[in-house]
Amino acid sequence: MQTKLSENKLEMNHAIEQAKKQREISISEFFTKNRHLLGFDSPLKAISTTVKESVDNSLDACEESNILPNIEVEIKQTTQERFQVTIEDNGPGIVKEQIPKIFGKLLYGSKFHTLMQGRGQQGIGVSASVLYGQLTTGKPAKITSKISKNKPAYYCELHFDTQKNEPEITRAEEVEWNKEHGTKIIIEMEGKYQRGKRSVSEYIKYTAVSNPHAKLTLIEPDGTTIVYPRATNHPPAKSKEIKPHPDGIELGILINMLKNTKSRTLQAFLTTDFSRIGAGTAKKICAEANINTNARPTRIAKQEADNLLQTIRKTKFVSPQTDCLSPIGEDLLKRSLKKEFDAEFFVTVTRPAAVYRGNPFIIEAGLAYGGSLNRETNAELIRFANKVPLQYQQSACSISKSVTRTKWKQYGLHQSNGNLPTGPLVIAVHMASVWVPFTSESKESIAHYPEIIKEIKLAVQECGRQLGKYVRKQGKVKDEAKKRSYLEKYVPVIGEALKEILALKDKDEKIINENLKDYLERSRKL
Amino acid sequence: MQTKLSENKLEMNHAIEQAKKQREISISEFFTKNRHLLGFDSPLKAISTTVKESVDNSLDACEESNILPNIEVEIKQTTQERFQVTIEDNGPGIVKEQIPKIFGKLLYGSKFHTLMQGRGQQGIGVSASVLYGQLTTGKPAKITSKISKNKPAYYCELHFDTQKNEPEITRAEEVEWNKEHGTKIIIEMEGKYQRGKRSVSEYIKYTAVSNPHAKLTLIEPDGTTIVYPRATNHPPAKSKEIKPHPDGIELGILINMLKNTKSRTLQAFLTTDFSRIGAGTAKKICAEANINTNARPTRIAKQEADNLLQTIRKTKFVSPQTDCLSPIGEDLLKRSLKKEFDAEFFVTVTRPAAVYRGNPFIIEAGLAYGGSLNRETNAELIRFANKVPLQYQQSACSISKSVTRTKWKQYGLHQSNGNLPTGPLVIAVHMASVWVPFTSESKESIAHYPEIIKEIKLAVQECGRQLGKYVRKQGKVKDEAKKRSYLEKYVPVIGEALKEILALKDKDEKIINENLKDYLERSRKL
Repeated sequence: MQTKLSENKLEMNHAIEQAKKQREISISEFFTKNRHLLGFDSPLKAISTTVKESVDNSLDACEESNILPNIEVEIKQTTQERFQVTIEDNGPGIVKEQIPKIFGKLLYGSKFHTLMQGRGQQGIGVSASVLYGQLTTGKPAKITSKISKNKPAYYCELHFDTQKNEPEITRAEEVEWNKEHGTKIIIEMEGKYQRGKRSVSEYIKYTAVSNPHAKLTLIEPDGTTIVYPRATNHPPAKSKEIKPHPDGIELGILINMLKNTKSRTLQAFLTTDFSRIGAGTAKKICAEANINTNARPTRIAKQEADNLLQTIRKTKFVSPQTDCLSPIGEDLLKRSLKKEFDAEFFVTVTRPAAVYRGNPFIIEAGLAYGGSLNRETNAELIRFANKVPLQYQQSACSISKSVTRTKWKQYGLHQSNGNLPTGPLVIAVHMASVWVPFTSESKESIAHYPEIIKEIKLAVQECGRQLGKYVRKQGKVKDEAKKRSYLEKYVPVIGEALKEILALKDKDEKIINENLKDYLERSRKL
Repeated sequence: MQTKLSENKLEMNHAIEQAKKQREISISEFFTKNRHLLGFDSPLKAISTTVKESVDNSLDACEESNILPNIEVEIKQTTQERFQVTIEDNGPGIVKEQIPKIFGKLLYGSKFHTLMQGRGQQGIGVSASVLYGQLTTGKPAKITSKISKNKPAYYCELHFDTQKNEPEITRAEEVEWNKEHGTKIIIEMEGKYQRGKRSVSEYIKYTAVSNPHAKLTLIEPDGTTIVYPRATNHPPAKSKEIKPHPDGIELGILINMLKNTKSRTLQAFLTTDFSRIGAGTAKKICAEANINTNARPTRIAKQEADNLLQTIRKTKFVSPQTDCLSPIGEDLLKRSLKKEFDAEFFVTVTRPAAVYRGNPFIIEAGLAYGGSLNRETNAELIRFANKVPLQYQQSACSISKSVTRTKWKQYGLHQSNGNLPTGPLVIAVHMASVWVPFTSESKESIAHYPEIIKEIKLAVQECGRQLGKYVRKQGKVKDEAKKRSYLEKYVPVIGEALKEILALKDKDEKIINENLKDYLERSRKL
């Protein structure tokens, strides 16, 4: 009995011991330890992630304020391992009260709680760069912002309190800045600068392709300055915020919406808190779910909400409005491809809008084929999400999955199982959506939602069929020539061998070769 | 002037307008919208992620309490789209005050703030399953836990307040449970159950392989019961917690450690807050960094911390201790492979410990080749992290990257560029570490740290060289036989053709065939 008791004590102690170790984890502690989730897994990527997050913010801010963006990125080497990254824009500026939280707090932003196509969406990006800079150099981020010509600019230096996920301003002052409005951020960090694939300059180049209204300047550590001038003076239409579409809505989200709505009746809730539910449909849904149209949304019980959901799932709705989405467009995408790639054949497709989890999205695809593109390697795949080029984690992306699962052999290309096709081909795919489901906080690849994969496949196949026609036409001509050249090449060799095998004389060889060629020609045509 | 002013007003308004939209985002709102980050991107994966997270927790809790695990997983279909998932263990149980936060709060746990090899590490897993269940069915999670034979069990139902990331207990009571200690969790969720690749049953099977001390039972929706009995009655050694190794430490982390240490001198800080810094080395570091060994750690300025870091980076340290790591072991891994795969040749390797970002880790690799494994398909890759099988996102994993970049041709296998080799081959790789850097919160693949990739390559190459010797020996024998069989097959056909070309008689054919075979045999040997 004694032993039993102490055994029980031991067991209890285990549970209690484990309990003592339980602790809350702050979101910035979490991301410090998991900085690769935010795109900071290598010195090379650290700089490129920082540039990307800042430029994306600048483009978004300009777009919302109808300003033609003029963005300058400068990268300076300060020690062997450290770089100072500066991004300056002519955007609307940021009011000084917001600066600390925007740059010094993870999960803070304007886009998370709205449904609107934008480059940023999670409220993590640029503050993660500040966090990384501080983590690797101990230095604060330096921010200058001006919101009006008549006001002085505001300058501050800020630190990140990792344990609390809160910003700490270490210096602040008003400064002169010879600019009407804009924002400049300087972050020093451990890094590595390199050109080529997945580099900062590649990111800037592709960003210019998908944002022809922006002027972009890159000053590299060695002083090289690359300028992408504006290709158009028309800023794209401002993105519109929309209500969720009822397709794909989930019970938990529906319950939260019911709890937080300002609508006073279920009827009003359905027609105003969702898009694409008209008065008639709303009445029908209420009737089928057996709830009064005048019921107070906040008083709807879980079981009723579940009935409502089941009825919504059975109802057919008009497709979501697409005016909230801003695709690149078939014409512009084709023009961009023609500008960047020296190919013979181009085709682009913009699909109609589709929906996943209630979020409308549009897939666009384009192909460039032939010309001086490399014939021996796999096709090059270029991915965009809300006009931002995706440079990393290609293999994890649903764009890659859809493209590699497409049967490219039917379009006349070689393809080994599960790979990109081989040949002189560039494949570009763009997803525009009010909410792009990225596979990680660093927004490098798109998650595998079946609806998205299906749309990408359809877009790629549509392009593929056009390509197939072109390739087959080209192929027939070439094949014929190739086969003929094989004949010419091998017939004399076989003839020689036959001569030896059959111990014939030299003068017979010519006749043999003729007969042989004739025989093989005939058999090939069977 | 009037226009200018109103223009300025407009600009100011943009900044102010954008400011109004800025909001804090709660971590559970974030993950609700990004549920694919937690492994809930499809109904199929939802169930398997839930089982994985719960079973991992059970195995960890048993291991820490030295209990031989007995875990039962039951999956029942409740409606066409909904399943009830139950996981019951004989672990130490959970004290009732901790239950709400462990199951109903994201980023809460015992493992995040320690360096110790464990299956769980982030404090997200099982609470994400509770969140998903609620999101899709509106139902609370039901938890029963008992920490001692002499106490009644505690039962509760809990909800998740998504906007606050806080648990809400909706029902709680003491209940009878005919068990000494353990925990049972029941979650109902939308899902899909399927067998085969990446299924729950595959997860359980591979978990049995890497945890031979556990008894695992799976009851499938159709009532099929699969039991994996214990293969050994010795629980693995309890994982030890360690201090960080100085290699790869970052400035921000060093500064935080200095701020929070209990050591009163820099000398004491270096020797007790890190592993592998002896008294002599500590003195040398202080001298080189030009800081007094008696300096108070909490008063060390940023610039001094930076000097300290630079000196640490230049210093050579003894490799990290490995007793904190619990690899599967060369023998056991080989035995497991032999048990699961009907192959001819097996080789396994456990590498010495290495370090990335101050975290020690060990890579193990194993190959199974030949026998009844499929010869026509790509090799099968099985990945483990801290003894947990990784089933998803294979292509994003640094294990896959290292394996596909290995030149398998030098070991006598076919391989198309950037792919797994083709042939009758299973490749198993295990990473054991006090902190596995996963590419997403759903812990499906390992991030691309160069040190990790290097170690995986070395392990795989070591196995590959052994395999190469075996394959070459086999290859010579087979090649000979294959070539001979080609001769036998084609000589008569060519003979027939020759007959036609040269208009010979039937009786000549036999002679031609003999001569032809002789000729080809000779030319092949040149």
